[in-house]
Amino acid sequence: GIEEKVPVAIVSQGSPLMYTPALKKAGIRVIQVCSTVRHARKAADAGVDAVVVSGTEGGGHSGFDQLTTMCIVPQVVDAVDIPVIAGGGIGDGRGLMAALSLGAEGVYMGTRFIATRECPAHPRAKELILATPDTGTISLRHGAPSPAVDDATGNRGFVEERRGSIRLVINDYLRRVMADGKFSYDEIFGKASPDDPGKKSNRTVDSYIWGKLENTSISAGQISGMIRDLPTCRELVERMVAQAEAVLKRLRGFHAE
Amino acid sequence: GIEEKVPVAIVSQGSPLMYTPALKKAGIRVIQVCSTVRHARKAADAGVDAVVVSGTEGGGHSGFDQLTTMCIVPQVVDAVDIPVIAGGGIGDGRGLMAALSLGAEGVYMGTRFIATRECPAHPRAKELILATPDTGTISLRHGAPSPAVDDATGNRGFVEERRGSIRLVINDYLRRVMADGKFSYDEIFGKASPDDPGKKSNRTVDSYIWGKLENTSISAGQISGMIRDLPTCRELVERMVAQAEAVLKRLRGFHAE
Repeated sequence: GIEEKVPVAIVSQGSPLMYTPALKKAGIRVIQVCSTVRHARKAADAGVDAVVVSGTEGGGHSGFDQLTTMCIVPQVVDAVDIPVIAGGGIGDGRGLMAALSLGAEGVYMGTRFIATRECPAHPRAKELILATPDTGTISLRHGAPSPAVDDATGNRGFVEERRGSIRLVINDYLRRVMADGKFSYDEIFGKASPDDPGKKSNRTVDSYIWGKLENTSISAGQISGMIRDLPTCRELVERMVAQAEAVLKRLRGFHAE
Repeated sequence: GIEEKVPVAIVSQGSPLMYTPALKKAGIRVIQVCSTVRHARKAADAGVDAVVVSGTEGGGHSGFDQLTTMCIVPQVVDAVDIPVIAGGGIGDGRGLMAALSLGAEGVYMGTRFIATRECPAHPRAKELILATPDTGTISLRHGAPSPAVDDATGNRGFVEERRGSIRLVINDYLRRVMADGKFSYDEIFGKASPDDPGKKSNRTVDSYIWGKLENTSISAGQISGMIRDLPTCRELVERMVAQAEAVLKRLRGFHAE
């Protein structure tokens, strides 16, 4: 990335001290993805230009503490002096205006942009998002269990529900393995699929690129339940702007009353 | 309630068909607390006047599906024709404006009003809310395990993380029992406390009214992390209105750009 002089690097999972100095030295703006006040403060102290604050409702990796966008965005806004970008749970102009109301300077959207014409995801993956209801995703625990909590530092290690988590769509495959009593990411996806033990692919490539959903599922957020079409990105953005203007008009109406 | 002619009844946990007809017949307005689109539709069909939609970030009982306020409020707004009131994660004027942006007609606030001078909760319970950081609550599973899923109806019964849940503050007591490997509400609070096996009290009364936090914790939402004072209710509401006006001004500024 540094050789290609990319203008902005979005970094997640791992200390902000790892890449920030080299990226900044190369003139690249750095945005760190965080999900707690402590991590956002660490990133700000490390010199990043902005943070993405990602709530548990978002698809894929969604932090250790299951904090929701509604709760964590204003707490990070109060804690750091750099711009905060809200991620997780934003699917339309109403979500955009809610995020800005919470103090965010912008939004970070994944699932909604996967369900667009331009996205190279496999049609079966896009169809699965369209078919997912409000209750159709689950945040699976991830990582090795270790219930040790260090009272001195407050570091709770990886404990049960507070371990790192990954939000996936509950498709037929996931429903079947959950019915067998499996509820952690490692129990379900920890090994290569039995029919292809030597494969070099991974779950995300299999599901999103190849559309193979028989032995896996896709990462997607709770807003999947409100996604009902596959617009172009242009149509999506124009629709969001129109919705945001309608929200602003509505909010001004409350004020006038 | 019916004899006293209360003007409004807020009903939660259980079918909206149970009390709605009798309450409506007595001229009482009925508001049903819901946490999914399906439950909100059922309540609207049963004739309630409005629904409270409560996200998983809220304190206490927080539904079966861990849906967040950001995601479930707009989905319910789209699904029903009656007013939607947003609950869970609203602690100040920013949260109020976010909820209204999502399409809610009003907000339902618990934790923030417990941390006021007027609230009769025990001072130790209020102090615990003030001391709780962003990551200081946990949603514990509730109910008997039963991983059966009925594919025909989509009813997943009570399965692991998707069982009913209760959000509590992680205090010293809860931290200790979690370190012992206990992570479900029933494991922790299923029996009367060992030192008083015959007691007729319950966890909520013990903690919130009597301030006994040695063998229990309090229900509170993820916004506990942004609560830093104990204002009067009047001060709280006036502050929220001022914050909401500042948010509106900020949103209008984005529009003008």
